[in-house]
Amino acid sequence: MEKKETAILLMHCPDKQGILAAVTDFINVNKGNIVYLDQHVDYVQNTFFMRVEWDLENFIIPREKIEDYFSTLYAQKYDMSYNLYFSHIKPRMAIFVSKMSHCLFDILSRYMDGGLHVEIPLIISNHPDLEWIGQKFGIPFYIFPITKENKMEQEAKEMELLRNENIDFIVLARYMQIISEDMIKSYPNKIINIHHSFLPAFIGAKPYHAAYERGVKIIGATSHYVTTELDAGPIIEQDVVRVTHKDTVQSFIHKGQDLEKIVLSRAVEKHIDRKVLSYKNKTVVFS
Amino acid sequence: MEKKETAILLMHCPDKQGILAAVTDFINVNKGNIVYLDQHVDYVQNTFFMRVEWDLENFIIPREKIEDYFSTLYAQKYDMSYNLYFSHIKPRMAIFVSKMSHCLFDILSRYMDGGLHVEIPLIISNHPDLEWIGQKFGIPFYIFPITKENKMEQEAKEMELLRNENIDFIVLARYMQIISEDMIKSYPNKIINIHHSFLPAFIGAKPYHAAYERGVKIIGATSHYVTTELDAGPIIEQDVVRVTHKDTVQSFIHKGQDLEKIVLSRAVEKHIDRKVLSYKNKTVVFS
Amino acid sequence: MEKKETAILLMHCPDKQGILAAVTDFINVNKGNIVYLDQHVDYVQNTFFMRVEWDLENFIIPREKIEDYFSTLYAQKYDMSYNLYFSHIKPRMAIFVSKMSHCLFDILSRYMDGGLHVEIPLIISNHPDLEWIGQKFGIPFYIFPITKENKMEQEAKEMELLRNENIDFIVLARYMQIISEDMIKSYPNKIINIHHSFLPAFIGAKPYHAAYERGVKIIGATSHYVTTELDAGPIIEQDVVRVTHKDTVQSFIHKGQDLEKIVLSRAVEKHIDRKVLSYKNKTVVFS
Amino acid sequence: MEKKETAILLMHCPDKQGILAAVTDFINVNKGNIVYLDQHVDYVQNTFFMRVEWDLENFIIPREKIEDYFSTLYAQKYDMSYNLYFSHIKPRMAIFVSKMSHCLFDILSRYMDGGLHVEIPLIISNHPDLEWIGQKFGIPFYIFPITKENKMEQEAKEMELLRNENIDFIVLARYMQIISEDMIKSYPNKIINIHHSFLPAFIGAKPYHAAYERGVKIIGATSHYVTTELDAGPIIEQDVVRVTHKDTVQSFIHKGQDLEKIVLSRAVEKHIDRKVLSYKNKTVVFS
Repeated sequence: MEKKETAILLMHCPDKQGILAAVTDFINVNKGNIVYLDQHVDYVQNTFFMRVEWDLENFIIPREKIEDYFSTLYAQKYDMSYNLYFSHIKPRMAIFVSKMSHCLFDILSRYMDGGLHVEIPLIISNHPDLEWIGQKFGIPFYIFPITKENKMEQEAKEMELLRNENIDFIVLARYMQIISEDMIKSYPNKIINIHHSFLPAFIGAKPYHAAYERGVKIIGATSHYVTTELDAGPIIEQDVVRVTHKDTVQSFIHKGQDLEKIVLSRAVEKHIDRKVLSYKNKTVVFS
Repeated sequence: MEKKETAILLMHCPDKQGILAAVTDFINVNKGNIVYLDQHVDYVQNTFFMRVEWDLENFIIPREKIEDYFSTLYAQKYDMSYNLYFSHIKPRMAIFVSKMSHCLFDILSRYMDGGLHVEIPLIISNHPDLEWIGQKFGIPFYIFPITKENKMEQEAKEMELLRNENIDFIVLARYMQIISEDMIKSYPNKIINIHHSFLPAFIGAKPYHAAYERGVKIIGATSHYVTTELDAGPIIEQDVVRVTHKDTVQSFIHKGQDLEKIVLSRAVEKHIDRKVLSYKNKTVVFS
Repeated sequence: MEKKETAILLMHCPDKQGILAAVTDFINVNKGNIVYLDQHVDYVQNTFFMRVEWDLENFIIPREKIEDYFSTLYAQKYDMSYNLYFSHIKPRMAIFVSKMSHCLFDILSRYMDGGLHVEIPLIISNHPDLEWIGQKFGIPFYIFPITKENKMEQEAKEMELLRNENIDFIVLARYMQIISEDMIKSYPNKIINIHHSFLPAFIGAKPYHAAYERGVKIIGATSHYVTTELDAGPIIEQDVVRVTHKDTVQSFIHKGQDLEKIVLSRAVEKHIDRKVLSYKNKTVVFS
Repeated sequence: MEKKETAILLMHCPDKQGILAAVTDFINVNKGNIVYLDQHVDYVQNTFFMRVEWDLENFIIPREKIEDYFSTLYAQKYDMSYNLYFSHIKPRMAIFVSKMSHCLFDILSRYMDGGLHVEIPLIISNHPDLEWIGQKFGIPFYIFPITKENKMEQEAKEMELLRNENIDFIVLARYMQIISEDMIKSYPNKIINIHHSFLPAFIGAKPYHAAYERGVKIIGATSHYVTTELDAGPIIEQDVVRVTHKDTVQSFIHKGQDLEKIVLSRAVEKHIDRKVLSYKNKTVVFS
C-alpha cells in the first residue's frame, strides 16, 4: 500500500463554536485534500479533540511553513495544544526488554513485515537472554544490567544512548524494571508499558498470582503511558480473556501472554499512527 | 422440557486415588443412571471436586436414606464436604432491591417464563420505588426502610421474615445497602450480590464514576457470594464490555446495566442448578 | 435526566469539501448549540455521513421552518439524503411477537423504566401465548393468527392497524413469521428483526440446531433491518458468546436468548435515538 | 517447567456405566498417578469421551506394553477408539505457508521460546517470499511452486518429503492453496487450517471482502481440521473481534491477522498437547 505524503494534526483545545470549521477551512482553502477526520467533544471537560490528516500533494503552504502558519492563525486564537506530523518522517522507537520474548517477537514480526511505520534502531535490556533475537533480526542490542546500586548510573547511560539515537518513544515490552522519574519526565506520554492485568486491578508485581488468588473469572492486560505513579498512567488499550476454575497460575500466564503481546502491539501501532491523544491522565484513541 | 427426578451430589475432599470410581460405583451398583458428571482436581490444593447427578427412577436406595448411606459409606471415609439435593425440591429465594429495576426485571422475566427452577416467595426493599413490580408479578413486596439508627432492628425483622418463609438463599439485585455480619453469617455462600465493576477493581461505592475517572477501556460486572469483607467474596461470574473516550459516566451506567443483569442472572441460575461450589474464597462453577 | 429540546439531523451525501463546515456554520450562525456531532467518510463510496444534534433553546429559526431552510440552503446544494427529528416527538413503535417472551420482556422492562424514548401503543402476535404480558404492562395486545391461506388478509389488517396508530417503526421480537413484501416495502429500514445466529451464518430456520450440527465454538445473534431478501438486510448490531463441546442444542438456545434480547434492545435503542443510518445495505451506527 | 514423563490416553466409545471407573482403576491399580483427567458425555450421541494423563514413574506396566494391555483388557470390551501418547515423544509438525508471515512468525516465536512441545523439521511453500524466515530460524524451507498443471506432481513430492521426515501433522499457516484429496486422506484430522472468517460464514476466497460487503459488525477466524469438503472440517477454535462502519477492507485484514495467528496457534497447541478429539465432524477440546 503506497501512500501519498500527508500531514497529520492532532490537537485539543477548549470547545468553542467553529473550531472544526476553521481548521477544515484552513486545509480546504489551501488545497489540502482531507483523507481522515475524526473529532471528539468531551462535554464534561468542555474540550474539543481532533485528528485530521490531509494529502500534501497540492497543498499550497510549503511543509516547513505549515506549523508556523497554523500556529499563528489558529492555535493561538483557540488556545490549542497540538502536534503536527508528516507521514514521510518515521518515528524512532526503542524497545526495552528483560527475559520474556513474546512481546518483542510480536513487535519485530510486524516490523519485519512492513506493518509498522517506524524505525527501531535499538533494543535495550537488563539481561542478555534475548540478545540472540536482536542478532537474528539485525537490531543492535544493548545490555545494561541493573542493580539497586547502579540504577541511576545505568539509566543515565541509557538516556544518553537514546538521545544519540534520536529516539522519539520507548516501548517497555515486559521490561521488568521500574523506570525512574528522570527518564519518565524526559519522555512524557512517550513510554508505553504493558501491564499483565486488567488495570486498575492487580497493580504491581505478580498480577497473575494475585488474580489466581482472588479467583477471578476473567484476566486482562493493559497498555498505558508510563507516569511517575506506578501502573497509573493513561490507558491506551485493554483486553481480556475468560478463565475458569480449571486454570492454574501457569495457564493464566500462558493465556495472558497472548493478550499482552496483542494489546501492546495494538497500542504501539496506534501511537505510531498518531492516533493517541493524552489528556488529564486519559487517552482519546482515534479509530 | 419435562425432567425426571434426579439426585445431585456436590462435593469436595482431599484428592485420593479412587474417589471418583467409588462414588460412581455407588450410583451404578444401586441402579442410578448418571445423567451428568463433572469433576475437577485442584492439584495446588490437592482437592477433588465433583458434581454428579443421577436419575432416581430405578435407584434402589430410598430417597430419604441416600444421605445416610452415602455419608456412612463414603463421605466419612474420604473426608468429604458435600451437599445432596433433589431436583423435585425447588430452593426458595428472596430478592433484595433498592431503586433500580433492571436486575429485578431480568430475574422475574426468567422466573415467569419457567426458566428458573426456584420459588420466589418475596421481595424485600429499603425503598417503595419498585413495589409496583412486585404487584405486577404477584410477589409479596416488603419494605424495610433503613437508616443508620434502625439498621440492626430492621435486619432482625428481615431475618425473621426470611426464616418464616424458609428462604434458602438471597439475591441482592442492586440492593444498595451493606448487609451486616449477622445476616451474612446466617447465609454463608447463600447471598449472591452483583457488583457493578470488574472486581477487584473499583471496590465500594460509585464504581462507574471511578472507572470513568481512571479512563479504562473496558468496564465489567461481577457476581459473588457475600462475605464479611466488602466485595471480596468468592466470584461466581464476571463479564465485560468495551468503552471508548466517547463514553460518559452515563453511558458507562447504561452499558453496565446490561452486564449487571445478565451476569447476576447467570450466577443465580448456576446457584439454583447446584453448579457452584465454594472453596477457600473461590468457586468451582460446573458447566 | 431532563433533556433540553434538540433537533437531530441525520444525513449523507457525496463527499465534498466543506459540507461539515457548511452545516455546522448553519447551526452556529443561527445560535444553535451543538451537543453532539459525529461524522464519517466512506472513502470507498465517496460518501459523507453525519449526525448532528443541537439545542433549540436559542435557535433563531422556528422549529417548523428548519427543514424548509435547511433543504433550500444546503440539502439541494450538496445532494443530501437527510432526516430531521425533534427530541420532543417520541417515535411510535409496534412490537410483533410469537411465543417466546425474553425479547419482549427485555424491551418492556426498559420501557417501563423510562429508558426508551418511545411510545409503544400496541403489540401484535400470531399467537395468544404472550397476551398476559401485554395485560400486565397495560399495552393493547392484538392477535392475528396466521395460516398460509389467510396471511395476506391478516397482514392487510395489521397494516391498517399500524396506520391507524401512526406507527413509525416495527420491532420483530422473535416473531416467527416471514413478513411479506408489501409490509416490508411500507416500512423501509423501519422493521428491526433479531435473528438468532451470527449472520450471514445460519440464515433461515433453526439456526441453533444448525450451529450445533456444525460444531461451532461461538454462537451469535444479529439485529438487522428487514428487506425482501431473507435475513439479508442491513446489520445494526451483533454479539456472540462462547460455547464448547459440553453445550447442547438446549444450552445453545438458553445462552442465545441472552444474546438475542440484548442485541435486539441495543439496536432498538440506537434506532430510537436516531443513531442508525442505512446506506447500500449497510449501516452507519453512531456512538 | 520440567515435567515428569507421562502417558496420555485420548479415547471415545459408546457410553456405558463403569468405563471411567474401569480406566482409572487400571491406572491406579498399576500405580500410575493421574495428573489430569477430564471426561465428557454426549448424551445425544450416547458417547463417552475422556482424556487421562498419568505419571509413568512408578507405573508397573512397561511403556511398550501399555497399549497391548489396555487394548486387550479395556478397549475391546468397551468398543473404544483411542490413541495412546507418551509425553517424551515430541510430534513432528510441518508448516505450509504462502506469502503472509504473521501466522508463521507466531508459531515460530512460540517454538523458539520452548512453548511448543513439538519438532518442526521443515516449512513448505509454493512461493519463495518467506524463505528468509526459515533461514533466520534455521528451519529447512522447501519451495514447491504450484500451477494447475503441476499440482498433482508437486503434491506427490511434498508427500514424499513429509514421509521421509516422519511428519505427524501439518499446519496450514495461511497456505493459499487447496489441498488435494490424496493428501487430505493421508493425514486425517492431522491437517490444521486457519480460515479468515467466522465459519460457516464466508467460506472460500476473500472472506474479508465478503464480510465488508455484507456489513457485519464482528469478524472472526476459525481453525479446523481439513477434510475433503472446503472449509467444512471439524472446528477446533474460533475467535472474533468487533468492527464498525469506520473499518475498511484493509482494516478488516489488519484486525483479522491478529485473530488468525492467535486462533491458529491455540489450535496447534491444543493438538500438540493431545487435547483435541475429533468425532463426527466435531471436536471435543479438553481444557
